[in-house]
Amino acid sequence: MGKVNCVVAQGGGPTAVINGSLYGVIVQAMKRQEIDGIYGAINGVVGVLRENFIDLRKEPQEVIDGLTFTPGAALGSCRYKLASEEEIGKVIEIFRKYKVRYFFYIGGNDSMDTANRIYEASINAKYDLGVIGIPKTVDNDLLFTDHCPGFGSAAKYIATSVLEAGYHARGLYEFERVTILETVGRNTGWLAGASALARRSSVDPPHLIYFPEVPFSLDQFKEDVKRVCNEIGGAFIVVGEGIRDERGELFSLKNGSSPVDSFGHVFLGRAGDFLRRFIIQEMGLVAQNIKLDICQQSAAHLISGVDIKEAQMVGEDAVKYAVNGKSGVMITLIREEGSSYRCKTSTVELSKVANRERKVPRPWINEEGNFVRKEFIQYAYPLIQEEVKVPTREGLPLYVKLHNYRVKEK
Amino acid sequence: MGKVNCVVAQGGGPTAVINGSLYGVIVQAMKRQEIDGIYGAINGVVGVLRENFIDLRKEPQEVIDGLTFTPGAALGSCRYKLASEEEIGKVIEIFRKYKVRYFFYIGGNDSMDTANRIYEASINAKYDLGVIGIPKTVDNDLLFTDHCPGFGSAAKYIATSVLEAGYHARGLYEFERVTILETVGRNTGWLAGASALARRSSVDPPHLIYFPEVPFSLDQFKEDVKRVCNEIGGAFIVVGEGIRDERGELFSLKNGSSPVDSFGHVFLGRAGDFLRRFIIQEMGLVAQNIKLDICQQSAAHLISGVDIKEAQMVGEDAVKYAVNGKSGVMITLIREEGSSYRCKTSTVELSKVANRERKVPRPWINEEGNFVRKEFIQYAYPLIQEEVKVPTREGLPLYVKLHNYRVKEK
Repeated sequence: MGKVNCVVAQGGGPTAVINGSLYGVIVQAMKRQEIDGIYGAINGVVGVLRENFIDLRKEPQEVIDGLTFTPGAALGSCRYKLASEEEIGKVIEIFRKYKVRYFFYIGGNDSMDTANRIYEASINAKYDLGVIGIPKTVDNDLLFTDHCPGFGSAAKYIATSVLEAGYHARGLYEFERVTILETVGRNTGWLAGASALARRSSVDPPHLIYFPEVPFSLDQFKEDVKRVCNEIGGAFIVVGEGIRDERGELFSLKNGSSPVDSFGHVFLGRAGDFLRRFIIQEMGLVAQNIKLDICQQSAAHLISGVDIKEAQMVGEDAVKYAVNGKSGVMITLIREEGSSYRCKTSTVELSKVANRERKVPRPWINEEGNFVRKEFIQYAYPLIQEEVKVPTREGLPLYVKLHNYRVKEK
Repeated sequence: MGKVNCVVAQGGGPTAVINGSLYGVIVQAMKRQEIDGIYGAINGVVGVLRENFIDLRKEPQEVIDGLTFTPGAALGSCRYKLASEEEIGKVIEIFRKYKVRYFFYIGGNDSMDTANRIYEASINAKYDLGVIGIPKTVDNDLLFTDHCPGFGSAAKYIATSVLEAGYHARGLYEFERVTILETVGRNTGWLAGASALARRSSVDPPHLIYFPEVPFSLDQFKEDVKRVCNEIGGAFIVVGEGIRDERGELFSLKNGSSPVDSFGHVFLGRAGDFLRRFIIQEMGLVAQNIKLDICQQSAAHLISGVDIKEAQMVGEDAVKYAVNGKSGVMITLIREEGSSYRCKTSTVELSKVANRERKVPRPWINEEGNFVRKEFIQYAYPLIQEEVKVPTREGLPLYVKLHNYRVKEK
């Protein structure tokens, strides 16, 4: 490594544009006299602990460029909580050993917690380290930022899927009455709500949307489905995987347990299946359910042009803030006033965002708790705009792999 | 209606290109002196029985053109078995009343059964009726045709989804070991097999594919998953919803019953969920499952250029064959010899295709029954080629609705 190095890493669940932020970090770091080596840690902070770094300056230009439309974490990611003081101390020792002056961590609230622990340890160790968190999450649940890169593309994919599956479903309402589509989002319904963007008239799907933010009642659900079927002929329902009953019990867990990750978060994704069976068994209707699961985080062939530009911007600006002496902060997006949509970046202390969640404001959900209000639409609408043409070869998208990580597989 | 009319209708589950065939019928019928009125029956044969016809000549040109990229059955579809002699006789009476000389039914094997019953009744009633079946099904299970329009687009969507979700999964193998993606196809694994098109190197997803054609053993599955995880670090598995154990019991039904349609077909779609839980509980690994469900049949933003052209061709040629006196046949696609891919149309008697299924040939699946052989790849590869640019508005595809069907929605 060189005299002054930076390390970039990716943590948590990837998004379709997470590599756009990696691209932003790399291209901005390359422009900077202050930075010699640009290294990627493989599998997030786990790669730091393993001293598993790759030299990003050695990647071919076409691979770097391909990061702007390639899904998944190009550097690999992790779900790993930096817990012990010993481990955190080890991170600082490794950064010292490799002359790492800047650490960029692209991730969600768990990763911001990790970044914050490293930042605090660097202060305590009197080691001069610029730690910058770069927001990414399809869940859109980070505080202090207007929205999170990754959300817009996932929202575009979900709205497109609901639009298309809705065209399919409407032709068969008489025979297959109900369709349920489940969105990710452990405690927040941002993606469930974004499906409303697909609706262009009062009869269009989605007809009902349910949020983790609002206690879910099966009785009310039954009434809602009945009413919509009577009015429209069939019902297209979008449901957040994290919906809970009045006592806080997750519907995703009502038919069996699920594994837990290192942060104590349980894997969800079975609320749609539960409701499908409820409709079949309790209402006697034919129902089908769609579970896009990780396709929501990886459908890069449908990324939003606005989203990928912002993902790159937060990556680039992270380097700028770091070089200007900022540390212990996460980049935020600030929506500017005015009639046309535009965001600039700012920063917020990592300690303020770590392990906290921003929920959909209750006034943005209707009183019945089964659809969004226009404030939600106005908020989400600009984020899914603009299309990106992904190159293809032999009928499929042509994504890239980092040359020096590729060999690590197996 | 005019002096000589044709009726076109859509039956069974729609595909992303089913309206391409409708478009083909309309534009070819418009060119024909022999045909006055061009009518669409709403909701397939059910619409015929209800005398629910719309005048397709009254649709604006931009709506007709939009059919070439709009998913769902633009005329509505049905799952309805024409059972009694009385009902079949009624269809003939209605066609006689409305001077319907040609009936085009776009559908799968159930719809071909319906078309065949109508054809036979027309012979018995000495009513001169040209009945032509137009093949469509993502399941690709119709006999006597090289493949079915709709399959190529669904295959392209599934391969793209596996490619993208595979990029996502590989960065987290250490933490989320196994991903399962379930494809539709009640008794055939054509779509499951097509996911192999996503694989570009030996470590790429999918790693394992399971077919309804091969009895599924949980013990063997466990061994397969273990081996792949050891070799690659994680496993990406594609499974047909119709997999069965050695005794023929469907895995989709092992965790509860499911409704049955008018043809006696049970609704499946829970094999992936079953296997996910098996891996979690019996192998102690974190697993996630993707169930694209009806998105496989409706993701028109990813239709294959080859597929939509053929969907139009079978629609156009159906009219040509009908006007030339053919009746009681389904249009087939015949792959021509030669190094470059090309199909022409032919016909086969409806009685031969009705209610029968074409399975994946066993020699196209490897001996272990957990992946395809190169013969399968060579077969499926040309069908997903070429991209189609779907128009967009406000960040989403701009699909059309028939003006005279739209008003039927409440």
